[in-house]
Amino acid sequence: MNPQQYAIERQDEFLDELIDWLKISSISTTPDYKTDVQRAADWLARHMAGLGLETQIFETPGNPIVFGRRLQAVPDAPTVLVYGHYDVQPPDPLDAWQTPPFEPSVRNGSLYARGAADDKGQLFIHLKAAQSILHATGTLPVNLKFVVEGEEEIGSPNLKAFVESHRDLLAADVAVISDTHGNGLDQPTIIYALRGLVYMELEVRGPATDLHSGIFGGAVHNPAQALCEIIARLHDSDGRVAIPGFYDRVRALDHEERAEIARLPYTDEDVRRETGVPASWGEAGYTLRERVGARPTLEINGIIGGWTGQGGKTVIPAKALAKVSCRLVADQDPLEIFALIQDFVAQITPPTVTSEVRLLPGRHGHPAIVDRHAPAVEAAIAAYEEGWGARPIFAREGGSIPVVVDFQRVLGAPVILMGFGLPDDNLHAPNEKFSLEAFRRGIATAISFYQRVAQPK
Amino acid sequence: MNPQQYAIERQDEFLDELIDWLKISSISTTPDYKTDVQRAADWLARHMAGLGLETQIFETPGNPIVFGRRLQAVPDAPTVLVYGHYDVQPPDPLDAWQTPPFEPSVRNGSLYARGAADDKGQLFIHLKAAQSILHATGTLPVNLKFVVEGEEEIGSPNLKAFVESHRDLLAADVAVISDTHGNGLDQPTIIYALRGLVYMELEVRGPATDLHSGIFGGAVHNPAQALCEIIARLHDSDGRVAIPGFYDRVRALDHEERAEIARLPYTDEDVRRETGVPASWGEAGYTLRERVGARPTLEINGIIGGWTGQGGKTVIPAKALAKVSCRLVADQDPLEIFALIQDFVAQITPPTVTSEVRLLPGRHGHPAIVDRHAPAVEAAIAAYEEGWGARPIFAREGGSIPVVVDFQRVLGAPVILMGFGLPDDNLHAPNEKFSLEAFRRGIATAISFYQRVAQPK
Repeated sequence: MNPQQYAIERQDEFLDELIDWLKISSISTTPDYKTDVQRAADWLARHMAGLGLETQIFETPGNPIVFGRRLQAVPDAPTVLVYGHYDVQPPDPLDAWQTPPFEPSVRNGSLYARGAADDKGQLFIHLKAAQSILHATGTLPVNLKFVVEGEEEIGSPNLKAFVESHRDLLAADVAVISDTHGNGLDQPTIIYALRGLVYMELEVRGPATDLHSGIFGGAVHNPAQALCEIIARLHDSDGRVAIPGFYDRVRALDHEERAEIARLPYTDEDVRRETGVPASWGEAGYTLRERVGARPTLEINGIIGGWTGQGGKTVIPAKALAKVSCRLVADQDPLEIFALIQDFVAQITPPTVTSEVRLLPGRHGHPAIVDRHAPAVEAAIAAYEEGWGARPIFAREGGSIPVVVDFQRVLGAPVILMGFGLPDDNLHAPNEKFSLEAFRRGIATAISFYQRVAQPK
Repeated sequence: MNPQQYAIERQDEFLDELIDWLKISSISTTPDYKTDVQRAADWLARHMAGLGLETQIFETPGNPIVFGRRLQAVPDAPTVLVYGHYDVQPPDPLDAWQTPPFEPSVRNGSLYARGAADDKGQLFIHLKAAQSILHATGTLPVNLKFVVEGEEEIGSPNLKAFVESHRDLLAADVAVISDTHGNGLDQPTIIYALRGLVYMELEVRGPATDLHSGIFGGAVHNPAQALCEIIARLHDSDGRVAIPGFYDRVRALDHEERAEIARLPYTDEDVRRETGVPASWGEAGYTLRERVGARPTLEINGIIGGWTGQGGKTVIPAKALAKVSCRLVADQDPLEIFALIQDFVAQITPPTVTSEVRLLPGRHGHPAIVDRHAPAVEAAIAAYEEGWGARPIFAREGGSIPVVVDFQRVLGAPVILMGFGLPDDNLHAPNEKFSLEAFRRGIATAISFYQRVAQPK
């Protein structure tokens, strides 16, 4: 039997199964739902075992990781690792939901529930694709592994250690993550690059204690002012980061990639509408889409110093602090960038104050990029064309997904982000939904992907 | 009998009286001491009446104002108004006091108690000087008025209205305030200028809400960064305020005044030792003493925006705010300076963000300056030479004492700040004290001042 035909015939059954799983409120952001988190992991493990996967639950210091695999493909068949997460965001504000978040409801061609798109529904696509091939043909064209965590919504605190200590178990030729969205049903998206991150604190100190501005104002360099003066020098007037060497390792965008990025326009008006800013901003010489995805940035995430309550106190603050982070792109190195910033800040700090740039522990990660011409990427493109009915757009994602970098680094495998969501899925918000059409097309795409990635070029 | 002789013979009695008053914990910063505040006002009113002054207690929305006067001088004698305050700072931290703050104790030639110097002791000098002249000679050479408030330590919220509504009652030819200190027993100080103040909030806004720096970083102008860029342009590299017109009305320092200011050196090392800064700072072309007293400044009193807690959040803040104030000198106008800053900030705000400069209500006051060659000032100089035994230094004070400006403006009288304190009196700190020698010399100086100010030049 044709796996695609199998999947089409069982759409209602697949949907009922997903609804059953979505009823479990596996919220990871508070310990109140520990039991539900455990139930969602158990449900998944039972379901995977029922499909014919060899299944294990790994306990961690936090929530369990569910692992499943089927290694019975023909010799030399590639191994595909699918990552997903079974935990969900809290549903607050509850009264903004049209139907309760954990009583899944179908209306207007979508399934409404917390976790419908992020990420239970998208992970379920892969399980149903595997089931369709396996049950229709009796075998899988690839060795398939699933690793599904329950702490993605709280920053995956235990995943990195798990990946590092289960390198052989997770070994794969390609990893797939479906936890993103395209630009609409007509424009599915493959994300091939993620920005890295390095997060710092920049502190400027002057007097030993806050001073009276009447007594000392004019004779000491105000640390809040000095901090502003330093921060103002971190960008030039063209919106470029002014730190010497900052761009040295940045991989240049070639003509083809810029053309690909330009397929999805992003205008000043888009930025204004989405954010409310009076006008967009950024690095001269690059489009807005390039600025948020393909170029590194330096942001002031926070700043504090002196009197910040109601009214006025006439103090010269003893110190002022900024939270500063950089989004990085290939092939920048987070710690090298940190060192460049340290050096530059030390160099421009005037002798009238002292400064310190500190790395925030655990808050740095490498950027990630996948070769858009790798065979697995070509397989994904063809799979979207066959299963989804549209050629995917290539996109760089401005944010950082640490697991992508960890998979690339530890497993040495390219990671492909095949998103099946839509832009209006209300992730992390009330009325989260997943399009039934996207669910159907996603399964067809995943079936096609497994089949195509198995074929040697 | 000679008034000076009278005062010398009654030193112990004067001290005992002051000690009696200092035992009353008239703390104004918390309502817990309301009864003690009232007791201190009553004690003062009884004491003034006992000296032969016509005395009144004026209730206000806050603590009472004690007024006393004696208008029986010879015809055409000038009127002197003495201002002081009977409220005190809280004594915390209590365990840092060697003897309890409200059990006055004499040791090492000083009287230790909260309020000993600030301001009960200094005001008492004037009462005892008046008593000495009046009781020794039977009359006063000047018409004398006392206005003593109980809310100086909380910003004198009810004094301005009282002065304005009792213009005739307070009318005087010269006002005297003894609530400051000199540079040591050998260097008494007359403060002849105070800086004014204007306090503002500067807010920069960008997106409607905090944004994810991964998604929008690079395409919108970070408001915290933009605020820093604006603040960095408020000074030039010479430490001058860069706002056009800021210095236009500043009265230039003539050679004689600069020479007078230079009599009391103030070095980079002094600033470093007093504050802990690595080096002093300020406006090129002016000495440190001139910078803190004779030149206007612009300070960042506080700054806040975005994520300022532990760790890091990768937000682009929706807005960032700075508390900004200027210390002003004659003849700058607070509201005019505010308007100049508003205009300049509007002009340099980039189109990628919006900004607003807001005046903080009630937080602006004019600078004050007294002609150093006015007859009353000459009388004060001669009084210090006779009574204190040293020629006073002329000093500008960097801070703002709103009552000085109010007296000058409402009464049209010059205000002379004749300080009798010493630099190590521990004002607002544990172990506040008042030198017994300063107490003695102060009374002698005040006696001499009243006598000299009465003599037509």
